[in-house]
Amino acid sequence: VSPPSSEAGAPATGPGRPSRDPRAPVGVFDSGVGGLSVLRHIRKLLPSEHLFYVADSAQVPYGPKGADFVRARALHIAEFLLDQGAKALVVACNAATAAAVATLRERHPWPVVGVEPALKPAAARSSGVVAVLSTELTLGSEKFGNLLGRWGSSVEVLVTPCPGWVALVEQGELKGERARELVQRQLAPLLRQGVDTFVLGCTHYPFLTPVIREVVGPGAAILETGEAVARQLKRRLTAEGLLSPSEELGREAFFTSGDPSAVEAVVRRLWGEGARVEHFA
Amino acid sequence: VSPPSSEAGAPATGPGRPSRDPRAPVGVFDSGVGGLSVLRHIRKLLPSEHLFYVADSAQVPYGPKGADFVRARALHIAEFLLDQGAKALVVACNAATAAAVATLRERHPWPVVGVEPALKPAAARSSGVVAVLSTELTLGSEKFGNLLGRWGSSVEVLVTPCPGWVALVEQGELKGERARELVQRQLAPLLRQGVDTFVLGCTHYPFLTPVIREVVGPGAAILETGEAVARQLKRRLTAEGLLSPSEELGREAFFTSGDPSAVEAVVRRLWGEGARVEHFA
Repeated sequence: VSPPSSEAGAPATGPGRPSRDPRAPVGVFDSGVGGLSVLRHIRKLLPSEHLFYVADSAQVPYGPKGADFVRARALHIAEFLLDQGAKALVVACNAATAAAVATLRERHPWPVVGVEPALKPAAARSSGVVAVLSTELTLGSEKFGNLLGRWGSSVEVLVTPCPGWVALVEQGELKGERARELVQRQLAPLLRQGVDTFVLGCTHYPFLTPVIREVVGPGAAILETGEAVARQLKRRLTAEGLLSPSEELGREAFFTSGDPSAVEAVVRRLWGEGARVEHFA
Repeated sequence: VSPPSSEAGAPATGPGRPSRDPRAPVGVFDSGVGGLSVLRHIRKLLPSEHLFYVADSAQVPYGPKGADFVRARALHIAEFLLDQGAKALVVACNAATAAAVATLRERHPWPVVGVEPALKPAAARSSGVVAVLSTELTLGSEKFGNLLGRWGSSVEVLVTPCPGWVALVEQGELKGERARELVQRQLAPLLRQGVDTFVLGCTHYPFLTPVIREVVGPGAAILETGEAVARQLKRRLTAEGLLSPSEELGREAFFTSGDPSAVEAVVRRLWGEGARVEHFA
């Protein structure tokens, strides 16, 4: 058992403990490369922060796996990020947020920011039907049930798991015939049902936005949560005095539990040519 | 710690243990009187069984409460039913099934039968949209997420919490202006969305079927699960040699954690004039 964190008040119960150094990195993780859709918003809003990103590619997709499994992976990755000196954690994965965000908050005294489907803005905006596109683990989580309880009576909510979409993004297949076909197959019936607002309830899906837009046309709204997550992270870092004071640009480091060279190829495509991916076990 | 159950193989870990006497009663419970919609199917299919029914009226509705709370109540009620000599358990409540059925099965070596929204038959039947009417705790459960993962890609699924419906049934308000208004308000938009199949995902709702039918018209399907649960219970009792050999009619005993006389008034309305309700703490 590690000693209590002297600065944060609450005792750390795991082997690592969060850094209280404002120059320390922010840890971000996802089942795979989907969380990069959140990372890009964080980078834009917080240019000086160092960002350490973990893709749990050996276990992607999380959706069909149970909440217990995903919770164990989240804790394992959080410990790795703590060992890397992280000061805060962004769970850039809807399924992992649903399964593990409460546990991650209890375990260590650090800012933990998660993602959830943007049902509130969707309910405010829609005059027809809202479709929540997500994996089964997110749709079947208590957190999502609570969201539904709050907003699901004021608007019609169609829920749809989108099998195969995560794999498309993991393989870097963001356009082309196969992507278009899969997206079309899932969304065409929803359009016939009068859906005017599509909530992307999985952080992989924003990378498919161009194809989704092509299929749903210019009139429908496509809501993702990356920007809101970046803003929430900034608020939390500011409130805790953890915002980086540096005026230099922060750097990114990428880690994966999968094959680094295969993952690196996709990360370079989604993030930029300079990205280098290391292995973590 | 009680000694291992000598007949069932697995050790009992709670204070009570399930009866292995085929003449013992079957325990049935719900957050309130909704489970009587399941009980009537059990009574019809298994006329010789003694049926002990617990309405957790002091805690109704379960829907807005967390899974941990509902799990704790389910375990408490199971212990009470074991103390009453029950040989099997029917969780006649969707929210309690979602939150607790696995724990109830692990805890004691007895047949435990739960309820879940009839999404499979709905998917087989619907040529439009399926609406699952349920409480937020059921819609947001991992079990429901798994169901969605299995059937939600082959059919459009609208999910809708129905605030106020449980209260209607608890108050015995099965028809009349207020019931019609609440049901109409929730279902009219669904009809405009092309819903042709309504899955009753809460055991209270079958008591509102006449009003629901009035609102949705003769063409739509209204699916409940009581009959399937009764059949499943019969299979399980038969497989374990626990089916009552008696040729006499079984009796019912009703218990509530709420006010017995208030609950008795509603039970008499839903079940029959002979019903008597006792208090349990």
